[in-house]
Amino acid sequence: MTTTQARTEADHAHGADPHAGHAAPAAAGQQGGHGPHGYSAQKDAHLKRLRRIEGQIRGLQRMVDEDVYCIDVLTQVSASTKALQSFALSLLEEHLRHCVAAAAEEGGAELDAKVAEATAAISRLLRS
Amino acid sequence: MTTTQARTEADHAHGADPHAGHAAPAAAGQQGGHGPHGYSAQKDAHLKRLRRIEGQIRGLQRMVDEDVYCIDVLTQVSASTKALQSFALSLLEEHLRHCVAAAAEEGGAELDAKVAEATAAISRLLRS
Amino acid sequence: MTTTQARTEADHAHGADPHAGHAAPAAAGQQGGHGPHGYSAQKDAHLKRLRRIEGQIRGLQRMVDEDVYCIDVLTQVSASTKALQSFALSLLEEHLRHCVAAAAEEGGAELDAKVAEATAAISRLLRS
Amino acid sequence: MTTTQARTEADHAHGADPHAGHAAPAAAGQQGGHGPHGYSAQKDAHLKRLRRIEGQIRGLQRMVDEDVYCIDVLTQVSASTKALQSFALSLLEEHLRHCVAAAAEEGGAELDAKVAEATAAISRLLRS
Repeated sequence: MTTTQARTEADHAHGADPHAGHAAPAAAGQQGGHGPHGYSAQKDAHLKRLRRIEGQIRGLQRMVDEDVYCIDVLTQVSASTKALQSFALSLLEEHLRHCVAAAAEEGGAELDAKVAEATAAISRLLRS
Repeated sequence: MTTTQARTEADHAHGADPHAGHAAPAAAGQQGGHGPHGYSAQKDAHLKRLRRIEGQIRGLQRMVDEDVYCIDVLTQVSASTKALQSFALSLLEEHLRHCVAAAAEEGGAELDAKVAEATAAISRLLRS
Repeated sequence: MTTTQARTEADHAHGADPHAGHAAPAAAGQQGGHGPHGYSAQKDAHLKRLRRIEGQIRGLQRMVDEDVYCIDVLTQVSASTKALQSFALSLLEEHLRHCVAAAAEEGGAELDAKVAEATAAISRLLRS
Repeated sequence: MTTTQARTEADHAHGADPHAGHAAPAAAGQQGGHGPHGYSAQKDAHLKRLRRIEGQIRGLQRMVDEDVYCIDVLTQVSASTKALQSFALSLLEEHLRHCVAAAAEEGGAELDAKVAEATAAISRLLRS
C-alpha cells in the first residue's frame, strides 16, 4: 500500500487520523515541494474533507427549502459542526507536530510565541 | 458523475436522514401558506445564512489549497462553526416558539415528548 | 418505589432524566410548597448532582497538588464540564416544560420573551 | 462575612485569572524543585483558580436551594463551565510548552505519541 492510499483511507474516519503519525516521517521528507506549513502534505485529504462538509451545507439548504422538520435540520447542523471540529483537530495535530515542534528546537521566545498562538486557536475552537 | 449524484453521496455518511428530503414535498402540499414547521416563515433568511456558510467552507478550501498558515485556517474554521451554531440557535428559537408552544396547548404527554426532543437536540449541539 | 427513589435513581444518569416526565404530574401537585420555578420539584436531585460536581472539583485540586500528569487532569476537567452541561440540560428541560409552557398559554409577547430568554441561555451554554 | 458577600466574591472573575501571568516568571525559576510536570511551576495559581470554581459550584447549590430563577442558575453554570475551560487551556498551554516541546527534542515516535495524546485531550474538551 502506498503512502497516498494510506492517507486516503485514513481520511474516511471522522476522528483523528490514526495513520497520520506513521505517514508523517515520509511526508516530511517531501515537504519542501509541498508548501511551507505542516498541513501541506495532507492537502488532498483536507480538501476532500472540506468538500464533504460543503456537501453537508448544501444538504442543509435543501432540507430548509423542503420544510424538513426543525429537529432533523438541527441534527444535520450538529453533524456538520462535528465534521468541522474534526477537520480543525486534524489541522491542529499537524500544526503541533510540525510548527510547534520546529519552534521547540529554536526554544525560548519562539517556542513561547508558537505555544501561545496555538492555545489561542484552541480557545477560539472551544468558544465556537 | 452528475452534480445530483455528488450531492447525494456527500449527504450519505453524515447522519442526516437521506429520506427526509423525499418526504418533504408531500408535506409541503399540506402546508397552507406557512408550512408545518415554525421555521418556514423565515426560510429566506435561513437560506441566505446557509449560503454564506457554504461560501465560508469554499473559502476554507481556497486557504488550504494556497497553503495559508494553519492558525489562520483554524480561525476561519471557528468562524464557520460559530455561524453554524448561530443558525442552529435561530432554528431552535422558532421551534420553541411554534412547535413547543403548540404542544403546550395539548399538554401532558405531547408537551413532554416535544420538550424531551428539543432537549436532546440541544444536547447534540453542545456535544458537537 | 417512591417518587423520591425514582428521582434519586434518575439522577445517576448524566444525560436527560428519563423519569422526569412521569414524575412531573405528581411533583406538580407539591409545587406550591417548593417554590415558584419549574425545577423546584427536583431540587434534591439537582443538589445531589451539584455536590458530586463539587467533589470532582476537589478531586482536581488533589490531582494538581499531587502533580498528576497534565493529560489526566485534563480528562477529569472534561468529565466535570460534561457533568455541568448535563446539569444545565436537566434544568433547561424543566424550564421548557414549566416556564415556557406556562408562557405559551399566555401567548404573544409573554411567550416571545420567554423563548428569547431561553435561547439566550442556550447560546451562553454553547459558547462556554 | 455574609452569604451575599461570599457569593459576590465567588462570582468575581469568571474568566482567566488576571494575576496568574504575573506569578509565572518568578515561579519558573523555582521549577526544578516542584515536580515532574510542566504545570507544577504554576501550582499555586492553578489551585487558587480551582478553589474559585469550587466556590462557584457551592454558589450554584445555594441558588438551587433558594429557588433562584432557572435562567439565572443557567447563567452561573455557563460561567463555571467557562472557568473550567479556561483552567484547562492554561494547563494545556503549559503541557505544550514543557512536555510536547521536550518530546520534540526526542523527535520521531516520541513526538508523534505526545502530539496524538494532546490532540485527543483537546478533542475531549471540544466534545464536553
